[in-house]
Amino acid sequence: MSLLSQEHMLGLNGYSEQDLITILDTAERMREILNRPVKKVPTLRGLTVVNLFFENSTRTRTSFELAEKRLSADTLNFSASGSAVSKGETLLDTARNIEAMKVDVVVIRHKSPGSPHFLSRHLDSIIINAGDGRHEHPTQALLDMLTLRDKFGSLKGLRVCLVGDISHSRVALSNIIGLKTLGASVLLCGPATLIPRHIERFGVEITHNLDEAIQNSDALNILRIQLERQSTGLFPSLREYHKYFGVNRQRLDKAASPLTILHPGPMNRGVEITSDVADSDHSVILRQVTNGVAVRMAALYLLAGGRAPSPESKPE
Amino acid sequence: MSLLSQEHMLGLNGYSEQDLITILDTAERMREILNRPVKKVPTLRGLTVVNLFFENSTRTRTSFELAEKRLSADTLNFSASGSAVSKGETLLDTARNIEAMKVDVVVIRHKSPGSPHFLSRHLDSIIINAGDGRHEHPTQALLDMLTLRDKFGSLKGLRVCLVGDISHSRVALSNIIGLKTLGASVLLCGPATLIPRHIERFGVEITHNLDEAIQNSDALNILRIQLERQSTGLFPSLREYHKYFGVNRQRLDKAASPLTILHPGPMNRGVEITSDVADSDHSVILRQVTNGVAVRMAALYLLAGGRAPSPESKPE
Amino acid sequence: MSLLSQEHMLGLNGYSEQDLITILDTAERMREILNRPVKKVPTLRGLTVVNLFFENSTRTRTSFELAEKRLSADTLNFSASGSAVSKGETLLDTARNIEAMKVDVVVIRHKSPGSPHFLSRHLDSIIINAGDGRHEHPTQALLDMLTLRDKFGSLKGLRVCLVGDISHSRVALSNIIGLKTLGASVLLCGPATLIPRHIERFGVEITHNLDEAIQNSDALNILRIQLERQSTGLFPSLREYHKYFGVNRQRLDKAASPLTILHPGPMNRGVEITSDVADSDHSVILRQVTNGVAVRMAALYLLAGGRAPSPESKPE
Repeated sequence: MSLLSQEHMLGLNGYSEQDLITILDTAERMREILNRPVKKVPTLRGLTVVNLFFENSTRTRTSFELAEKRLSADTLNFSASGSAVSKGETLLDTARNIEAMKVDVVVIRHKSPGSPHFLSRHLDSIIINAGDGRHEHPTQALLDMLTLRDKFGSLKGLRVCLVGDISHSRVALSNIIGLKTLGASVLLCGPATLIPRHIERFGVEITHNLDEAIQNSDALNILRIQLERQSTGLFPSLREYHKYFGVNRQRLDKAASPLTILHPGPMNRGVEITSDVADSDHSVILRQVTNGVAVRMAALYLLAGGRAPSPESKPE
Repeated sequence: MSLLSQEHMLGLNGYSEQDLITILDTAERMREILNRPVKKVPTLRGLTVVNLFFENSTRTRTSFELAEKRLSADTLNFSASGSAVSKGETLLDTARNIEAMKVDVVVIRHKSPGSPHFLSRHLDSIIINAGDGRHEHPTQALLDMLTLRDKFGSLKGLRVCLVGDISHSRVALSNIIGLKTLGASVLLCGPATLIPRHIERFGVEITHNLDEAIQNSDALNILRIQLERQSTGLFPSLREYHKYFGVNRQRLDKAASPLTILHPGPMNRGVEITSDVADSDHSVILRQVTNGVAVRMAALYLLAGGRAPSPESKPE
Repeated sequence: MSLLSQEHMLGLNGYSEQDLITILDTAERMREILNRPVKKVPTLRGLTVVNLFFENSTRTRTSFELAEKRLSADTLNFSASGSAVSKGETLLDTARNIEAMKVDVVVIRHKSPGSPHFLSRHLDSIIINAGDGRHEHPTQALLDMLTLRDKFGSLKGLRVCLVGDISHSRVALSNIIGLKTLGASVLLCGPATLIPRHIERFGVEITHNLDEAIQNSDALNILRIQLERQSTGLFPSLREYHKYFGVNRQRLDKAASPLTILHPGPMNRGVEITSDVADSDHSVILRQVTNGVAVRMAALYLLAGGRAPSPESKPE
């Protein structure tokens, strides 16, 4: 009943160019709804979506919850703390229980790569991956792509550079897959210790020199440095990291034409990005947030809209 | 205005056979709603239900919240952590405050036996007990009974055995009362240290031999062993417990005809129940979960439906 | 688009007498809705309100959430724990993110005085202050004032005494400003260590003698003593505090005519107030709670109703 070639959104792996374009086009229409006085349509009325977050992520959960409510779905937040999960129940038992409650869609955030795929094999609900460890985070990549398309009209031939801690990012892989599918080229820039081995097989280029990356990119997607990573020996110090990989105005000014700046948030101002960059006219960071709601509305509508009584139902 | 002989659901104690049958019959109709594409009816539109959980129970709270939303009630989750409760306010003051906000129904989970009864004496709201310590947990017993009735057609003459930690269970007493009221006989099976003294006055039989219990039962309701109980000296070890009271396929195969298996969850697979039993065709554990939502919808409708503007209102 | 002279509710400072009367009059009409069988009107349908609580306050958050739901707004609870905030994000970045999600109203509780004002300068959303440190808590003062107006018909010439820990109260300043604006006189009573220096510039009187305060007041608003304050040396002990500033029946009986008793809750029975006072006929403490929902409905309607599609929309 999905309007895509896929029943679930486990990752962008397996999504065709046409699927991605359908999602981005639908997200544009959803975004129009967000700019109306009444930002709500009855599309998913009567359907229930569970936000099954085994890791804290207020930002992503909030964005999904808003998307669900704006499509008039009933939402239920299920967080792991204090739940049967902490009593030692298996993921499968937890999920089966939630499904036995007759839930239509499960949005899952879990630290284990592949957990959404595991659920999709055992449940009848539609599964949407909201981040499975360092693996995929497809709606984040889609919102990044929509934001780039807004700016450049098309992703074909666009040169996008992901900057920073590629290894521990839940954002990088989905971005690489999605951008490549839509015809962009992807460059990775960061310290050698924070770039996964063998990542070249995804058809990306690698550099350890930020100035070089800036010369060869149209847009930078600056990943968050997790401050708790400092003591792991993967990089010497935040000051050192900032010196070599922090994106600031001076560095950007050397580019032939201004680069578009993305960041998935939350930002460490003064570490991976300086405030003059974050708040500049070329930053699309807040547009990413708006697009996040729009993209999630699109994904929910395309995957679950067929389950609702009148998928053709017009906005109120 | 209740459609039952009781105004509240403090426990199954005091509920007549007719009341219980009304609830189970209503729950069957509610379950039909859960199998529709749109699982929602306007029955409680405009009423407010507060889920007042002084103990964590994601599972029970989620089931109630779903039931409330499917009846179109407005729901409010009030958990004790971070609330006035942790600032030393009395239960009565907390409850009066919530009622002064003009709430129609209070669903309460509290560690103290009798706390729902206490509230019902002081508030005008309808009170539903979602577990008061080791005392009653009426909706859990009702969902167990509905699941058994689904399987056997009637509870009259049915032989049900509760297996495990009867003493610390919030499930046992409500089950005993409800099952006896509907004409079933109840057997308790567990180590002597985990069966309350004088429990025979409720008209139950006791055995400490699981094989004997299996020979004399049509259905086993296997209670959860709380792993933190291990160090209390009430039983030697989980391994030991499993050896004597763990329900596995081999033991069940000795029965003349297959026993129906219930478990209130969350399960400790390999302790009180093995996976081959939990996942077998005779397990109705996931049906219990579905019936949990249906039974809670029924209780809410029967107790509070009379407060809504049009109790006869048809599904949308 | 606000129906008041102010766009936001950052505090009662800046609100005119006419504004305050409009809010209280509107709250009276909202309270009528709370006494209907169906306590819900479609006034804010389609608008989204975020409850952005950086400090725990189940009581205030619950009251706002109820008010929002009864006006048919979509609500989203955003608490600081586990959010980007705890990852070191600035308040402004958090707020901008929330606004980029196209939120209409932000209700903020934050420990820093002035944080709602800061937000209002940077965001397009309507901001409502739900307590900024020890500074203002305007809806609390409004509910106190509505409760007093219910009892006395008018606040003109009324003598109101705030008793207790004025220094650490988030309630005192808004009460002083609002009461003075509506023509009441305000007396403060507490130990010298718990009354801020220079508070007289707000046109209040001060006494350190509770019996004297009782002689010269029509109503006492008894503030909560925060038990954790005990070890700070600001007062000797709870027993000592109770001896000199605890309001009990004996003390009140010496007044010429009975005083009306308010308390913002949660109460420490036996410390700042005794149970015979809290539960007496002259206590309006529970009416305050009901009025809290009504006043918040009024504020939301007056500030945000103009954003909704049909502000004139009648109750369902």
